[in-house]
Amino acid sequence: MVSVAQWPALDRTSGDLEGQVYRLMRDRILHGQLPAGQRVPSTRTMALALGVARSTVVNAYDRLKAEGYLQSATGAATRVAAFPAAPLSGQAVSPMPNQPRITEFKTGGLFEPGVPDVSAFPHAAWARCLGARGRSLRVHDLGYGDHGGIRELREALLDHIAATRGVIARPEQVVIVPSTGAAIGLLASVLLQPDHAGDIVWMEDPGYASAQAILRMAGASLVPVPCDAEGIDIAQGAGPSPRLIYVTPSHQYPTGATMSLPRRLALLKFARANGAIVLEDDYDSEFQYASRPIAALQGIDRSEVVAYIGTFSKTLAPGLRVAYAVIPSRLLAATEAAQRLRGAVVPVHIQAALADFMREGRFRAHLRQMNAIYAERMAATVEALRRYCGDGLEVAEGGGGLQLASWFCDIETDDVAVARAINSNGFAVRPISALYLGPARPGLLLGIARMEARAADAAVARIARLLATMPVNA
Amino acid sequence: MVSVAQWPALDRTSGDLEGQVYRLMRDRILHGQLPAGQRVPSTRTMALALGVARSTVVNAYDRLKAEGYLQSATGAATRVAAFPAAPLSGQAVSPMPNQPRITEFKTGGLFEPGVPDVSAFPHAAWARCLGARGRSLRVHDLGYGDHGGIRELREALLDHIAATRGVIARPEQVVIVPSTGAAIGLLASVLLQPDHAGDIVWMEDPGYASAQAILRMAGASLVPVPCDAEGIDIAQGAGPSPRLIYVTPSHQYPTGATMSLPRRLALLKFARANGAIVLEDDYDSEFQYASRPIAALQGIDRSEVVAYIGTFSKTLAPGLRVAYAVIPSRLLAATEAAQRLRGAVVPVHIQAALADFMREGRFRAHLRQMNAIYAERMAATVEALRRYCGDGLEVAEGGGGLQLASWFCDIETDDVAVARAINSNGFAVRPISALYLGPARPGLLLGIARMEARAADAAVARIARLLATMPVNA
Repeated sequence: MVSVAQWPALDRTSGDLEGQVYRLMRDRILHGQLPAGQRVPSTRTMALALGVARSTVVNAYDRLKAEGYLQSATGAATRVAAFPAAPLSGQAVSPMPNQPRITEFKTGGLFEPGVPDVSAFPHAAWARCLGARGRSLRVHDLGYGDHGGIRELREALLDHIAATRGVIARPEQVVIVPSTGAAIGLLASVLLQPDHAGDIVWMEDPGYASAQAILRMAGASLVPVPCDAEGIDIAQGAGPSPRLIYVTPSHQYPTGATMSLPRRLALLKFARANGAIVLEDDYDSEFQYASRPIAALQGIDRSEVVAYIGTFSKTLAPGLRVAYAVIPSRLLAATEAAQRLRGAVVPVHIQAALADFMREGRFRAHLRQMNAIYAERMAATVEALRRYCGDGLEVAEGGGGLQLASWFCDIETDDVAVARAINSNGFAVRPISALYLGPARPGLLLGIARMEARAADAAVARIARLLATMPVNA
Repeated sequence: MVSVAQWPALDRTSGDLEGQVYRLMRDRILHGQLPAGQRVPSTRTMALALGVARSTVVNAYDRLKAEGYLQSATGAATRVAAFPAAPLSGQAVSPMPNQPRITEFKTGGLFEPGVPDVSAFPHAAWARCLGARGRSLRVHDLGYGDHGGIRELREALLDHIAATRGVIARPEQVVIVPSTGAAIGLLASVLLQPDHAGDIVWMEDPGYASAQAILRMAGASLVPVPCDAEGIDIAQGAGPSPRLIYVTPSHQYPTGATMSLPRRLALLKFARANGAIVLEDDYDSEFQYASRPIAALQGIDRSEVVAYIGTFSKTLAPGLRVAYAVIPSRLLAATEAAQRLRGAVVPVHIQAALADFMREGRFRAHLRQMNAIYAERMAATVEALRRYCGDGLEVAEGGGGLQLASWFCDIETDDVAVARAINSNGFAVRPISALYLGPARPGLLLGIARMEARAADAAVARIARLLATMPVNA
């Protein structure tokens, strides 16, 4: 018989006395302190000892019996059940796991790339759309539905990207996902064989580090293809044919270059001839300052070799968690199957509210407003960078997008060390060399989205002072 | 000079005349109808021919120049630019893709498994929570934030599953994802090597077809381990050690069996000894009719070999698109990195509203209500099935969950053919043999969630009449 004196006092503030009795006893059984066959106190004795109602102990014992910790024949005493083995001692588990490789960058400082300004987020209009759909959605909307997204949002989105980006597709080709990462992963899962290690993917170089990491995680062998002021030069791709070619034609990440028309046509021709799919990541093409945005590659592709990706993370807010892909027709069946399994889906309330938000013209209005704000910030940053750092840094045009590339004139500069030194002073600039797969050119990437125009001059002046204190090739 | 007579009439109802002019000319250039070097009509001539304002044509030409389709030296005529090659004719792309293998089942009929009843969804309470958060969320909530989920929801969820499922974890171990599929995929990406074809995963057999397909898509080699009335018998696993063992201990899918305590302890001991992770999919454990739900495996695991998965798809609504995983501590860093890249994230508004909904006790109340409804439906279905089909079908207990397994006494029965015949009469039952990886036992799986208790008798009687018309071994 187990002595009751050994039980600790219960926590009477928690409310769940029964659960406490259950766990106390269960843990002792699992740890071998109550061995198999041992009689346990009667419910009456236990209740008295613990100072709880007898029904509390009865319920806890019932649960322990139901779960197999205790057993009792009718009329006989309750005893600890016999187990195959005590499971809670022994060796630790073997070493793990397959860490995705991605360079960690500092976040949260000035000039951080990739992060939009959400301070002008249209809270009132969004709350109204969301609240209305919270009230109006009904039973038929709340099921599993179409894993590619609700019809209304696919149509509203397609109207928008047809008008602004020249994308040509049917609503069925649109897949709504929570992020660009999910969209890239979806396409990778359709195009790359999991049991076929090293499917080849050609990447713009330098390029988007997360895309590199996602595709590697999907098992791809990445082959860098150099980029210049006209974007990727497909003629410089070497080795076996790729399954996938990842590009950012509107604003090449990180250089900001817009892919020229001859390069676009060469890329499409190459993809068609080699049975490759071009993954066009059009992540912040909506922000264009100097000139009208160039239409998407997808719209001039008549062979359906382009899969197109866009996101609301830059245009509205990252926390909204909505992005999209436009899939070539012949990949649709495979993509639908993969999307259903991968389950990177977007809540129906958010989709419906976003469709309304777009139909009401709220999205277009917000884009117009943000374009004006970002244009001013980009111009101020470009100007300050040229003024204060023009001797040592070659500054990109800044014609669009949310980041600005600049290159060290001294190609021996250790931009990782320089960025680290700058960032220890409250900045979050990126060393561009870290974004290369192939031979790297040193530079700094600055996010302009949250740098108010009137503050840009002083911020860049501080960077210039910091640069001045560093030895050449810092 | 291009003649203007050849241009088709514009669609004057569309509003975007400039876009039409741009696309008309662009497409002719891309198709080689306007060859390189060709002079294009002056903006004045073109405007007259098309019947549009000259500024419309000027803007369209500017866009074509900006995108590289047209070129003009100052003062000279505008001409079609030279391209490397006409890209729009030629060979089609090579055959594609890596189709995930998953058995397609009929959806939308009576007794469809896996689909909850959302007709009692608490619309008013949910709309209030969602509307309130739509109004109250601000700038600092709308950024990228933590890809694992917002703190409030992780805490509210953990409080709930600690109380109801005995799960023991810290909020950092909770990852909020849109679906069970996303959770399984996340863990697969952490535990299986993409470039290491055929990492071994042991699967309960029979088992959840989507889990099989997701893990295959991630490159796993699946090894079936037989299940009986006590759940998976790990001692029957054969061959090399697995990296991952997928189980549904609360209500084994599809048999409904609850894993016995000795089997649970043996499973944990095996996983610890062999460096495997147990993936506990606790998909509908909240619904328990005969007795109190047995606590989760996760809560009795002190070696952190269990990764736990749950979902709101069954308890609230699939359209909500919220599920979660509880990750062992030593996999946290890898999981966070993978989650950031995979980007299967949930909108902040939904997370915040759900946290409030849980804190207010709305979720608990809804579970209580649905438990009563489903218990009645399960009982009615079990009773009717035993009454009408008891001669030919062995019916499971139906002690919990949203589906009911039944087994053909004649083990030669072709359950796929039988299910097809039944389903052509408005049902959507599943043949259980399709859920096996190894040697199969024929049976039928019925979803009880949307079968009203008063209608179950007549529906099952119809199934019985259909069965009677089929030859044995149909």
